[in-house]
Amino acid sequence: MRRSLADLKSDCHAAVLAEVAETGLARLTVEGIARRAGVAKTSIYRHWPTVDDLLLDALDRTFPAERPTPGGKNLRADLLRSLDQLTAWLAGPTARAAAAILAERHRRPDLVDALYRRVFDAHGGRFTQTVLRLYAERGEIDAGRITPVVCDIGEAMVIKHQIDTGELPGKAYRTAIVDQVILPALGVQAPNEKTR
Amino acid sequence: MRRSLADLKSDCHAAVLAEVAETGLARLTVEGIARRAGVAKTSIYRHWPTVDDLLLDALDRTFPAERPTPGGKNLRADLLRSLDQLTAWLAGPTARAAAAILAERHRRPDLVDALYRRVFDAHGGRFTQTVLRLYAERGEIDAGRITPVVCDIGEAMVIKHQIDTGELPGKAYRTAIVDQVILPALGVQAPNEKTR
Repeated sequence: MRRSLADLKSDCHAAVLAEVAETGLARLTVEGIARRAGVAKTSIYRHWPTVDDLLLDALDRTFPAERPTPGGKNLRADLLRSLDQLTAWLAGPTARAAAAILAERHRRPDLVDALYRRVFDAHGGRFTQTVLRLYAERGEIDAGRITPVVCDIGEAMVIKHQIDTGELPGKAYRTAIVDQVILPALGVQAPNEKTR
Repeated sequence: MRRSLADLKSDCHAAVLAEVAETGLARLTVEGIARRAGVAKTSIYRHWPTVDDLLLDALDRTFPAERPTPGGKNLRADLLRSLDQLTAWLAGPTARAAAAILAERHRRPDLVDALYRRVFDAHGGRFTQTVLRLYAERGEIDAGRITPVVCDIGEAMVIKHQIDTGELPGKAYRTAIVDQVILPALGVQAPNEKTR
Protein backbone atom coordinates (compact mmCIF):
# COMPACT_ATOMS: atom_id res chain seq x y z
CA MET A 1 0.00 0.00 0.00
CA ARG A 2 1.38 3.38 -0.97
CA ARG A 3 1.80 6.04 1.66
CA SER A 4 -0.36 9.15 1.34
CA LEU A 5 1.49 12.33 0.44
CA ALA A 6 0.89 13.70 3.95
CA ASP A 7 2.39 10.56 5.52
CA LEU A 8 5.36 10.61 3.17
CA LYS A 9 6.10 14.26 4.04
CA SER A 10 5.72 13.65 7.73
CA ASP A 11 7.99 10.56 7.55
CA CYS A 12 10.63 12.65 5.73
CA HIS A 13 10.34 15.40 8.38
CA ALA A 14 10.86 12.90 11.20
CA ALA A 15 13.74 11.25 9.31
CA VAL A 16 15.71 14.45 8.66
CA LEU A 17 15.36 15.56 12.30
CA ALA A 18 16.51 12.19 13.64
CA GLU A 19 19.30 11.95 11.09
CA VAL A 20 20.81 15.40 11.73
CA ALA A 21 20.62 14.90 15.50
CA GLU A 22 22.56 11.64 15.11
CA THR A 23 25.11 12.48 12.41
CA GLY A 24 25.47 16.25 12.80
CA LEU A 25 24.98 18.76 10.03
CA ALA A 26 28.28 18.09 8.27
CA ARG A 27 27.43 14.44 7.58
CA LEU A 28 23.75 14.89 6.75
CA THR A 29 22.99 13.34 3.35
CA VAL A 30 19.88 12.75 1.28
CA GLU A 31 20.85 9.04 1.16
CA GLY A 32 20.75 8.78 4.96
CA ILE A 33 17.41 10.58 5.17
CA ALA A 34 15.88 8.46 2.36
CA ARG A 35 17.04 5.22 4.02
CA ARG A 36 15.65 6.26 7.40
CA ALA A 37 12.30 7.37 5.92
CA GLY A 38 12.09 4.32 3.65
CA VAL A 39 11.58 6.42 0.52
CA ALA A 40 13.45 6.89 -2.75
CA LYS A 41 15.82 9.85 -3.06
CA THR A 42 13.75 11.07 -6.03
CA SER A 43 10.68 11.32 -3.77
CA ILE A 44 12.60 13.68 -1.51
CA TYR A 45 13.84 15.84 -4.39
CA ARG A 46 10.31 16.00 -5.82
CA HIS A 47 9.18 17.92 -2.71
CA TRP A 48 12.30 19.73 -1.47
CA PRO A 49 14.96 21.18 -3.79
CA THR A 50 17.75 20.67 -1.23
CA VAL A 51 18.41 18.87 2.06
CA ASP A 52 18.54 22.29 3.76
CA ASP A 53 15.00 23.02 2.56
CA LEU A 54 13.75 19.72 3.93
CA LEU A 55 15.50 20.36 7.25
CA LEU A 56 14.09 23.88 7.64
CA ASP A 57 10.62 22.70 6.58
CA ALA A 58 10.76 19.93 9.21
CA LEU A 59 11.84 22.39 11.93
CA ASP A 60 9.09 24.80 10.89
CA ARG A 61 6.38 22.10 10.97
CA THR A 62 7.34 20.69 14.36
CA PHE A 63 8.10 23.92 16.22
CA PRO A 64 5.38 24.62 18.81
CA ALA A 65 3.50 27.90 18.79
CA GLU A 66 3.33 29.51 22.22
CA ARG A 67 -0.32 29.68 23.14
CA PRO A 68 -1.43 31.79 26.11
CA THR A 69 -4.60 30.51 27.79
CA PRO A 70 -7.47 31.91 25.68
CA GLY A 71 -8.82 34.94 27.49
CA GLY A 72 -6.51 34.02 30.35
CA LYS A 73 -6.13 36.44 33.22
CA ASN A 74 -3.23 34.82 34.96
CA LEU A 75 0.15 36.10 33.83
CA ARG A 76 2.09 33.83 36.18
CA ALA A 77 0.23 30.68 35.08
CA ASP A 78 0.74 31.59 31.41
CA LEU A 79 4.48 32.20 31.95
CA LEU A 80 4.81 28.84 33.71
CA ARG A 81 2.90 27.21 30.84
CA SER A 82 5.26 28.83 28.35
CA LEU A 83 8.33 27.44 30.18
CA ASP A 84 6.63 24.01 30.32
CA GLN A 85 6.22 24.18 26.53
CA LEU A 86 9.85 25.24 26.12
CA THR A 87 11.21 22.34 28.19
CA ALA A 88 8.92 19.86 26.41
CA TRP A 89 10.28 21.17 23.09
CA LEU A 90 13.89 21.01 24.32
CA ALA A 91 13.41 17.33 25.21
CA GLY A 92 12.33 16.43 21.68
CA PRO A 93 13.96 15.78 18.30
CA THR A 94 13.38 19.27 16.86
CA ALA A 95 15.54 20.87 19.55
CA ARG A 96 18.35 18.37 18.97
CA ALA A 97 18.23 19.20 15.26
CA ALA A 98 18.33 22.94 16.05
CA ALA A 99 21.34 22.34 18.34
CA ALA A 100 23.11 20.47 15.52
CA ILE A 101 22.64 23.54 13.30
CA LEU A 102 23.82 25.97 15.99
CA ALA A 103 26.95 23.85 16.56
CA GLU A 104 27.96 24.59 12.95
CA ARG A 105 27.49 28.36 13.12
CA HIS A 106 30.99 29.12 11.79
CA ARG A 107 30.65 26.80 8.80
CA ARG A 108 26.97 27.45 8.01
CA PRO A 109 25.99 30.97 9.15
CA ASP A 110 23.37 31.01 6.35
CA LEU A 111 21.53 28.03 7.84
CA VAL A 112 21.69 29.48 11.38
CA ASP A 113 20.23 32.70 9.98
CA ALA A 114 17.45 30.75 8.25
CA LEU A 115 16.75 28.83 11.49
CA TYR A 116 16.14 32.08 13.37
CA ARG A 117 14.16 33.80 10.61
CA ARG A 118 12.09 30.94 9.20
CA VAL A 119 11.59 28.93 12.37
CA PHE A 120 12.14 30.82 15.64
CA ASP A 121 11.05 34.35 14.59
CA ALA A 122 8.12 33.00 12.56
CA HIS A 123 6.79 31.24 15.68
CA GLY A 124 6.87 34.19 18.06
CA GLY A 125 10.58 34.84 18.53
CA ARG A 126 11.14 33.38 21.98
CA PHE A 127 9.16 31.45 24.52
CA THR A 128 7.37 33.85 26.96
CA GLN A 129 7.48 36.68 24.40
CA THR A 130 3.96 36.01 23.05
CA VAL A 131 2.56 35.90 26.57
CA LEU A 132 4.39 39.07 27.63
CA ARG A 133 3.20 41.03 24.58
CA LEU A 134 -0.39 39.88 25.04
CA TYR A 135 -0.55 41.02 28.67
CA ALA A 136 1.19 44.30 27.77
CA GLU A 137 -1.35 44.95 24.97
CA ARG A 138 -4.15 44.46 27.48
CA GLY A 139 -2.46 47.00 29.76
CA GLU A 140 -1.95 44.46 32.53
CA ILE A 141 1.84 44.94 32.54
CA ASP A 142 4.01 47.93 31.61
CA ALA A 143 4.81 47.65 27.88
CA GLY A 144 8.03 49.62 28.48
CA ARG A 145 9.40 46.66 30.41
CA ILE A 146 8.95 44.16 27.54
CA THR A 147 12.49 44.64 26.22
CA PRO A 148 14.56 42.13 24.21
CA VAL A 149 16.56 41.29 27.36
CA VAL A 150 13.42 40.68 29.43
CA CYS A 151 11.83 38.55 26.67
CA ASP A 152 14.94 36.36 26.70
CA ILE A 153 15.01 35.59 30.45
CA GLY A 154 13.00 32.35 30.26
CA GLU A 155 14.94 30.75 27.42
CA ALA A 156 18.29 31.95 28.78
CA MET A 157 17.77 30.50 32.26
CA VAL A 158 16.31 27.19 31.06
CA ILE A 159 19.10 26.64 28.51
CA LYS A 160 21.81 27.63 31.02
CA HIS A 161 20.47 25.03 33.47
CA GLN A 162 20.75 22.44 30.70
CA ILE A 163 24.33 23.51 29.88
CA ASP A 164 25.39 23.35 33.55
CA THR A 165 23.70 20.10 34.54
CA GLY A 166 22.96 18.23 31.32
CA GLU A 167 19.33 18.10 32.47
CA LEU A 168 16.26 20.19 31.74
CA PRO A 169 15.01 22.14 34.77
CA GLY A 170 12.13 20.62 36.74
CA LYS A 171 8.92 22.33 37.79
CA ALA A 172 10.42 23.90 40.94
CA TYR A 173 13.30 25.52 39.05
CA ARG A 174 10.98 26.78 36.30
CA THR A 175 8.69 28.26 38.97
CA ALA A 176 11.70 29.98 40.55
CA ILE A 177 12.62 31.49 37.16
CA VAL A 178 9.13 32.98 36.87
CA ASP A 179 8.78 34.14 40.49
CA GLN A 180 12.34 35.25 41.20
CA VAL A 181 13.36 36.71 37.83
CA ILE A 182 10.64 37.28 35.21
CA LEU A 183 7.90 38.72 37.44
CA PRO A 184 10.32 41.11 39.27
CA ALA A 185 11.65 42.29 35.88
CA LEU A 186 8.04 43.15 34.96
CA GLY A 187 7.52 44.99 38.23
CA VAL A 188 4.94 42.38 39.28
CA GLN A 189 5.02 40.81 42.73
CA ALA A 190 5.07 37.00 42.85
CA PRO A 191 1.91 35.68 44.57
CA ASN A 192 3.81 33.95 47.33
CA GLU A 193 7.34 33.98 48.65
CA LYS A 194 7.47 30.27 49.40
CA THR A 195 9.43 29.50 46.25
CA ARG A 196 12.45 31.41 47.56
CA MET B 1 69.00 28.37 27.02
CA ARG B 2 66.72 26.18 29.12
CA ARG B 3 63.28 27.41 30.07
CA SER B 4 62.60 27.99 33.75
CA LEU B 5 60.18 25.56 35.35
CA ALA B 6 57.57 28.33 35.66
CA ASP B 7 57.89 29.13 31.95
CA LEU B 8 57.69 25.49 30.98
CA LYS B 9 54.52 25.02 33.01
CA SER B 10 52.95 28.16 31.64
CA ASP B 11 53.86 27.13 28.06
CA CYS B 12 52.22 23.73 28.64
CA HIS B 13 49.10 25.41 30.06
CA ALA B 14 48.80 27.66 26.99
CA ALA B 15 49.48 24.70 24.66
CA VAL B 16 46.79 22.41 26.12
CA LEU B 17 44.16 25.17 26.02
CA ALA B 18 44.94 26.06 22.41
CA GLU B 19 45.15 22.41 21.39
CA VAL B 20 41.81 21.33 22.90
CA ALA B 21 40.05 24.38 21.46
CA GLU B 22 41.36 23.45 18.02
CA THR B 23 41.08 19.64 17.99
CA GLY B 24 38.27 19.03 20.48
CA LEU B 25 38.53 16.81 23.53
CA ALA B 26 38.29 13.51 21.63
CA ARG B 27 41.46 14.18 19.59
CA LEU B 28 43.52 15.80 22.34
CA THR B 29 46.86 13.99 22.69
CA VAL B 30 50.02 14.50 24.71
CA GLU B 31 51.95 14.46 21.40
CA GLY B 32 49.96 17.43 20.07
CA ILE B 33 50.40 19.38 23.30
CA ALA B 34 54.17 18.61 23.47
CA ARG B 35 54.67 19.71 19.85
CA ARG B 36 52.77 22.95 20.38
CA ALA B 37 54.62 23.77 23.62
CA GLY B 38 58.00 22.71 22.19
CA VAL B 39 58.72 20.29 25.03
CA ALA B 40 59.36 16.55 25.32
CA LYS B 41 56.42 14.31 26.26
CA THR B 42 58.43 13.15 29.29
CA SER B 43 58.52 16.76 30.58
CA ILE B 44 54.75 16.83 30.53
CA TYR B 45 54.40 13.48 32.33
CA ARG B 46 56.92 14.64 34.95
CA HIS B 47 54.48 17.35 36.08
CA TRP B 48 51.05 15.98 35.22
CA PRO B 49 50.10 12.29 35.47
CA THR B 50 47.53 12.55 32.66
CA VAL B 51 46.43 14.92 29.91
CA ASP B 52 43.20 15.50 31.87
CA ASP B 53 45.23 16.71 34.86
CA LEU B 54 47.18 19.13 32.69
CA LEU B 55 43.97 20.42 31.11
CA LEU B 56 42.21 20.97 34.45
CA ASP B 57 45.34 22.57 35.92
CA ALA B 58 45.52 24.97 32.94
CA LEU B 59 41.83 25.88 33.31
CA ASP B 60 42.29 26.42 37.04
CA ARG B 61 45.35 28.69 36.56
CA THR B 62 43.79 30.87 33.90
CA PHE B 63 40.28 31.21 35.28
CA PRO B 64 39.71 34.75 36.59
CA ALA B 65 38.60 35.35 40.16
CA GLU B 66 35.67 37.74 40.39
CA ARG B 67 36.91 40.75 42.33
CA PRO B 68 34.41 43.30 43.68
CA THR B 69 35.85 46.80 44.03
CA PRO B 70 37.67 46.78 47.41
CA GLY B 71 35.38 48.45 49.92
CA GLY B 72 33.12 49.32 47.01
CA LYS B 73 29.74 50.80 47.74
CA ASN B 74 28.25 50.56 44.29
CA LEU B 75 26.38 47.34 43.64
CA ARG B 76 25.45 48.29 40.08
CA ALA B 77 29.03 49.21 39.13
CA ASP B 78 30.33 45.96 40.64
CA LEU B 79 27.72 43.89 38.76
CA LEU B 80 28.66 45.60 35.50
CA ARG B 81 32.32 44.95 36.26
CA SER B 82 31.55 41.29 36.87
CA LEU B 83 29.80 40.96 33.47
CA ASP B 84 32.77 42.78 31.86
CA GLN B 85 35.06 40.15 33.39
CA LEU B 86 32.77 37.36 32.20
CA THR B 87 32.72 38.56 28.59
CA ALA B 88 36.50 39.11 28.61
CA TRP B 89 36.89 35.52 29.83
CA LEU B 90 34.46 34.19 27.22
CA ALA B 91 36.53 35.84 24.47
CA GLY B 92 39.70 34.00 25.52
CA PRO B 93 41.25 30.56 25.14
CA THR B 94 40.16 29.20 28.55
CA ALA B 95 36.48 29.57 27.66
CA ARG B 96 36.97 27.82 24.32
CA ALA B 97 38.65 24.94 26.16
CA ALA B 98 35.77 24.80 28.67
CA ALA B 99 33.29 24.74 25.76
CA ALA B 100 35.21 21.83 24.21
CA ILE B 101 34.79 19.89 27.47
CA LEU B 102 31.06 20.75 27.78
CA ALA B 103 30.50 19.57 24.18
CA GLU B 104 31.59 16.09 25.28
CA ARG B 105 29.34 15.82 28.33
CA HIS B 106 27.83 12.48 27.25
CA ARG B 107 31.19 10.85 26.64
CA ARG B 108 33.13 12.46 29.51
CA PRO B 109 30.76 13.31 32.39
CA ASP B 110 33.70 12.85 34.81
CA LEU B 111 35.66 15.67 33.18
CA VAL B 112 32.60 17.98 33.07
CA ASP B 113 32.12 17.27 36.77
CA ALA B 114 35.79 18.08 37.48
CA LEU B 115 35.48 21.30 35.42
CA TYR B 116 32.64 22.51 37.64
CA ARG B 117 34.17 21.39 40.95
CA ARG B 118 37.86 22.15 40.44
CA VAL B 119 37.53 25.22 38.23
CA PHE B 120 34.16 26.99 38.31
CA ASP B 121 33.09 26.27 41.91
CA ALA B 122 36.60 26.83 43.24
CA HIS B 123 36.59 30.33 41.72
CA GLY B 124 33.31 31.55 43.14
CA GLY B 125 30.73 29.43 41.32
CA ARG B 126 29.37 31.94 38.85
CA PHE B 127 30.12 35.46 37.77
CA THR B 128 28.11 38.01 39.85
CA GLN B 129 27.75 35.49 42.72
CA THR B 130 30.75 36.82 44.68
CA VAL B 131 29.49 40.40 44.34
CA LEU B 132 25.92 39.46 45.32
CA ARG B 133 27.07 37.56 48.42
CA LEU B 134 29.37 40.40 49.51
CA TYR B 135 26.61 43.01 49.34
CA ALA B 136 24.16 40.64 51.08
CA GLU B 137 26.68 40.03 53.90
CA ARG B 138 26.96 43.78 54.39
CA GLY B 139 23.17 43.95 54.61
CA GLU B 140 22.88 46.19 51.54
CA ILE B 141 20.66 43.71 49.71
CA ASP B 142 18.20 41.10 50.98
CA ALA B 143 20.13 37.83 51.47
CA GLY B 144 16.89 35.90 50.88
CA ARG B 145 16.95 37.00 47.25
CA ILE B 146 20.42 35.58 46.54
CA THR B 147 19.08 32.25 45.25
CA PRO B 148 20.78 29.89 42.76
CA VAL B 149 18.46 31.15 40.00
CA VAL B 150 19.26 34.80 40.73
CA CYS B 151 23.01 34.11 40.90
CA ASP B 152 22.79 32.56 37.43
CA ILE B 153 21.07 35.49 35.65
CA GLY B 154 24.26 37.20 34.45
CA GLU B 155 25.93 34.11 32.99
CA ALA B 156 22.66 32.80 31.52
CA MET B 157 21.83 36.00 29.66
CA VAL B 158 25.37 36.63 28.39
CA ILE B 159 25.77 33.05 27.14
CA LYS B 160 22.30 33.05 25.54
CA HIS B 161 23.21 36.22 23.61
CA GLN B 162 26.31 34.41 22.35
CA ILE B 163 24.28 31.33 21.31
CA ASP B 164 21.71 33.46 19.45
CA THR B 165 24.07 35.87 17.68
CA GLY B 166 27.50 34.24 17.70
CA GLU B 167 28.76 37.43 19.36
CA LEU B 168 29.43 38.43 22.94
CA PRO B 169 27.09 41.15 24.20
CA GLY B 170 28.38 44.73 24.14
CA LYS B 171 28.30 47.25 26.96
CA ALA B 172 24.70 48.39 26.29
CA TYR B 173 23.33 44.86 26.42
CA ARG B 174 25.31 44.04 29.57
CA THR B 175 23.98 47.22 31.19
CA ALA B 176 20.44 46.19 30.24
CA ILE B 177 20.99 42.78 31.89
CA VAL B 178 21.99 44.51 35.14
CA ASP B 179 19.33 47.26 35.10
CA GLN B 180 16.40 45.33 33.64
CA VAL B 181 16.91 41.89 35.18
CA ILE B 182 19.46 41.53 38.00
CA LEU B 183 18.64 44.68 40.00
CA PRO B 184 14.84 44.10 39.81
CA ALA B 185 15.38 40.49 40.99
CA LEU B 186 17.23 41.92 44.01
CA GLY B 187 14.41 44.39 44.68
CA VAL B 188 16.79 47.27 43.90
CA GLN B 189 15.73 50.10 41.60
CA ALA B 190 18.04 50.84 38.66
CA PRO B 191 19.49 54.36 38.97
CA ASN B 192 18.00 55.53 35.68
CA GLU B 193 15.44 54.26 33.25
CA LYS B 194 17.29 55.45 30.16
CA THR B 195 18.60 51.97 29.40
CA ARG B 196 15.08 50.71 28.66
